[in-house]
Amino acid sequence: MKTGKFIVIEGLEGAGKTTAHQSVVEVLKREGITDVIFTREPGGTPLAEKLRHLIKHENEEPVTDKAELLMLYAARIQLVENIIKPALAAGKWVVGDRHDLSSQAYQGGGRQMDKAFLATLKTSVLDNFEPDFTLYLDITPEIGLARARGRGALDRIEQQNLDFFYRTRQRYLALVENNPKAVIINAEQDIDKVRTDIQSAVKNFVEMNRNK
Amino acid sequence: MKTGKFIVIEGLEGAGKTTAHQSVVEVLKREGITDVIFTREPGGTPLAEKLRHLIKHENEEPVTDKAELLMLYAARIQLVENIIKPALAAGKWVVGDRHDLSSQAYQGGGRQMDKAFLATLKTSVLDNFEPDFTLYLDITPEIGLARARGRGALDRIEQQNLDFFYRTRQRYLALVENNPKAVIINAEQDIDKVRTDIQSAVKNFVEMNRNK
Repeated sequence: MKTGKFIVIEGLEGAGKTTAHQSVVEVLKREGITDVIFTREPGGTPLAEKLRHLIKHENEEPVTDKAELLMLYAARIQLVENIIKPALAAGKWVVGDRHDLSSQAYQGGGRQMDKAFLATLKTSVLDNFEPDFTLYLDITPEIGLARARGRGALDRIEQQNLDFFYRTRQRYLALVENNPKAVIINAEQDIDKVRTDIQSAVKNFVEMNRNK
Repeated sequence: MKTGKFIVIEGLEGAGKTTAHQSVVEVLKREGITDVIFTREPGGTPLAEKLRHLIKHENEEPVTDKAELLMLYAARIQLVENIIKPALAAGKWVVGDRHDLSSQAYQGGGRQMDKAFLATLKTSVLDNFEPDFTLYLDITPEIGLARARGRGALDRIEQQNLDFFYRTRQRYLALVENNPKAVIINAEQDIDKVRTDIQSAVKNFVEMNRNK
């Protein structure tokens, strides 16, 4: 059996990841790929969801940047080993709301954590596992946060100041710009144009992959 | 104000860490050190206690060795930054039931995780923070586990096979044998002799420290 592919949607709060997910599933269906599962990070397994809650809503004590990062990787390796790898091996496609790039951007860029430590953690925890294709939804922090606020209360990470999100966006851009396995989608366009851009990028990926 | 000292009690299940803790507090009191707090790992802060529960009792899915290790370090850095360092700075002494040596022994020795990864994690997460003095209670795994079983049901880690605990003990011994900040206590002796050995080691540490 042919193994599935792992497509990840990345971007700041309010960039439109949920809508993008629907667009990806639609185009995969049109291309004949129907065995698709959805994951979100942090989360996606019983243990990882409990960690997600601790990461986003711990409020009894200050959470150190290091503890946040370590919990994110603990959740990630549970999801990769127990859900994503078995699904891919069974021929399913996996569409992920966030993956490792989020930690590089938020913890590396936003929180300005040590690059060498982040790189070691990524390699030691994930080995060579990485997405086959990443859609990065690019948006100005002010616009994204205004949209996210419209959805309701912000969690612990969403409550960071604007500079945090500017640094996060900058790191995202630096990491996807020259990455042949990633595309940048302008998420400030109107919603139909965003959908068209996403679907044409995914269609292209599927076709390239089909011919291999 | 003079900063406090961090004394850690280490050893396998059933080695007598709880009794040892009482012996340490007694001798500190006799030496005039009464401002003492107690910590246990994993745990000791609200977030770290929640992680302790996940580490010891997660049963909805297999827990990867890496997730276990990352959760242990997340709990540890919360305890170090939010409890231990402020206590030491305020002149309190801290007596810990387990600290980093447990991860080196259980995850490094018992689970045979990569030594380089463990070393990087320790350095990156804890920087140079380490106990001032460690009491390692040495016991044959069969004897310790029989005692632990007498106390009730074993948790996820205590349910490992005997080889796991032999490897853990071996790594403990290798790490404390030539460590000037650690002593090995023979925990198979009768309880009064164990107490005397612990108290004489701690008294010695206090006096050395007083003369500095």
